[in-house]
Amino acid sequence: MASTSQLLSLDKMIMNSLSDKELLEYNRIHYGRCDHNEIEIKRNTAELATKNDFEIAAYDFPTKKEQIRSPRIVRVGVIQNSIAVSTDKPIADQRQGIFNKVRNIIESAASEGVNVLCLQEAWSMPFAFCTREKQPWCEFAESATDGPSTLFLKEFALKYGMVIISPILERDDIHGDTIWNTAVVINESGKVIGKHRKNHIPRVGDFNESTYYFEGNTGHPVFDTKFGKIAVNICYGRHHPLNWLMFGINGAEIVFNPSATVAGLSEHLWAIEARNAAIANSYFTCAINRVGTETFPNEFTSGDGNPAHKEFGHFYGSSYITAPDGTRTPGLSRVKDGLLIAQIDLNLCRQIKDKWAFTMTQRLDLYAESLNKAIKHDYEPQVISNKGK
Amino acid sequence: MASTSQLLSLDKMIMNSLSDKELLEYNRIHYGRCDHNEIEIKRNTAELATKNDFEIAAYDFPTKKEQIRSPRIVRVGVIQNSIAVSTDKPIADQRQGIFNKVRNIIESAASEGVNVLCLQEAWSMPFAFCTREKQPWCEFAESATDGPSTLFLKEFALKYGMVIISPILERDDIHGDTIWNTAVVINESGKVIGKHRKNHIPRVGDFNESTYYFEGNTGHPVFDTKFGKIAVNICYGRHHPLNWLMFGINGAEIVFNPSATVAGLSEHLWAIEARNAAIANSYFTCAINRVGTETFPNEFTSGDGNPAHKEFGHFYGSSYITAPDGTRTPGLSRVKDGLLIAQIDLNLCRQIKDKWAFTMTQRLDLYAESLNKAIKHDYEPQVISNKGK
Repeated sequence: MASTSQLLSLDKMIMNSLSDKELLEYNRIHYGRCDHNEIEIKRNTAELATKNDFEIAAYDFPTKKEQIRSPRIVRVGVIQNSIAVSTDKPIADQRQGIFNKVRNIIESAASEGVNVLCLQEAWSMPFAFCTREKQPWCEFAESATDGPSTLFLKEFALKYGMVIISPILERDDIHGDTIWNTAVVINESGKVIGKHRKNHIPRVGDFNESTYYFEGNTGHPVFDTKFGKIAVNICYGRHHPLNWLMFGINGAEIVFNPSATVAGLSEHLWAIEARNAAIANSYFTCAINRVGTETFPNEFTSGDGNPAHKEFGHFYGSSYITAPDGTRTPGLSRVKDGLLIAQIDLNLCRQIKDKWAFTMTQRLDLYAESLNKAIKHDYEPQVISNKGK
Repeated sequence: MASTSQLLSLDKMIMNSLSDKELLEYNRIHYGRCDHNEIEIKRNTAELATKNDFEIAAYDFPTKKEQIRSPRIVRVGVIQNSIAVSTDKPIADQRQGIFNKVRNIIESAASEGVNVLCLQEAWSMPFAFCTREKQPWCEFAESATDGPSTLFLKEFALKYGMVIISPILERDDIHGDTIWNTAVVINESGKVIGKHRKNHIPRVGDFNESTYYFEGNTGHPVFDTKFGKIAVNICYGRHHPLNWLMFGINGAEIVFNPSATVAGLSEHLWAIEARNAAIANSYFTCAINRVGTETFPNEFTSGDGNPAHKEFGHFYGSSYITAPDGTRTPGLSRVKDGLLIAQIDLNLCRQIKDKWAFTMTQRLDLYAESLNKAIKHDYEPQVISNKGK
């Protein structure tokens, strides 16, 4: 499904073009550290990746030892994947195709000791919301508790003692068969401990998701798992700093951002937003983007003056992980399926809060008061006129 | 004052290392556009810059024409400068030395038709807060209305019909001789139309500013000038997304971020934060950093376990401007004084609000309510336990 004319990776292009000395400066200024602290992948895992044509990369974030608290080392993994069979096939086949390819990636995550694994937004289906067609796409919607995607992943969670976050299209048959964009959190015993519904729904380009589902009603939950306090900011929520903030206020140490976004729209924003959130909130962020180009059976229009088309554009992958100190990993490929792993110490969050003091200097009381005024329909903005002395 | 061992510019290093084809991809993904739309500098301006050893660069942000509104083209300029004479000289001499070098840069801004010009944080003094010494540094504090810096700049504002933002150390003799970190806004008639006081004060590294002044009490004013609605987010306020947000809510079209920050602390965050703010709030941001290395007469300590020292570290300049669509200019030098100019159309702000719809999808009412709860001392975070089904 990958278009071969696409650049493979911006990071690799620069890595191959700069001299060793230049690269040190680039790494220091751009990634925030001279050394990526790459972790070697086991031979059998690497072979599995090669055989199944996905990328695998792992990086360490070494953290200072504390006197009182023991290190809380966690291996975080994120998966980016293209779809497996064409979108005109029966939806059960489309889903099974994705299950088959993702199975291999999960196996390799387990082989590398991943503790918390997150998949991309609506991972078990094509990102069909561009079409504005209700059928057959709404049939991908499934129960958070016992839908096919949850059942599929629960097995791995239990088998490998791994927390898995599964962003799906959810069907809520308790509340009028409503549809939601939802992340299901499965714990290391294979139990669903809760879910989060996407808080902010796009109205931009081909992202016609507001045709299918509404703004989430689950607030900003933080899941207190065996491997740290985690939260999920789904896709377009990454454009909203307040969404990131509330997960921080609720104590998140890792916030996953499962996404689906395309070149030509957002690629120059991709390296900025999830990273800014890590900095502003002193937590780890994991930005995950779908990969590949998806084509749909019927033409659709995106209201941009271009002719009707069947292709959504290129999902550019480039998933990456940022630490609370703003340092980050290189991104995964722009075109290939991949697994990105980071070994992190959750203690770094509080260390950075102590260092930068953002949670103490942020003056939340001032902003609570300001926002209360600002939401009034007759709010008068604080504007200073051009008269002067 | 510039250390010669420093890298001149990350942007230029990459520009010189990539092939033309690679550079197109880098520009597209990193800056958000393949072409920087560089504006040619007039010969006499360029000569002035060469003679006085400062950099000058100008870029255009072409914007779609609308049917009803005429374009609102504005030239924005930002100045980064090192200090002029050593910090053991009389403070009047130190200030006059800076005036002398900044005069040339303002003249060249006028020559290039700059309408709104912003200087760096505490531009007319060394960034002496690292020392924690009250004398002589507090003597740099001056009246916002008629202190030396304001009087110096009012002349240029009137002469060139230019709005000038002057970030200074303010002395408020009406309120108990208090000291503030303040940006003074002078309009195109040379009149002071208002001021903004820094909202968030750092407690990190050598940034001992909380010894000298407190959190600002001027809210989030937007100045309705002849050349657009402008606001000022001073330095450490850039780490706080809510600070940026409130300027946006109050209608800002351009937000300046006059700063003073050093390599080893923040350089990997520099390209992220002001740019993220432009994206999240659909306005232009201008990130301005001091440049050069400043040495002080007496040793001070920064509490990082290193020996006492007299040098603050390297202010890495790298000032840059971001448009509401997230595209940005290359940065100025890491070591030289400089003037960066952007020709912008303020209409782009609303065009991007229409395109991305962040101001409609941001659910401010939800966050006003959430923050009101969160500021309570007995707030109970929304945490989901690890029990499951």
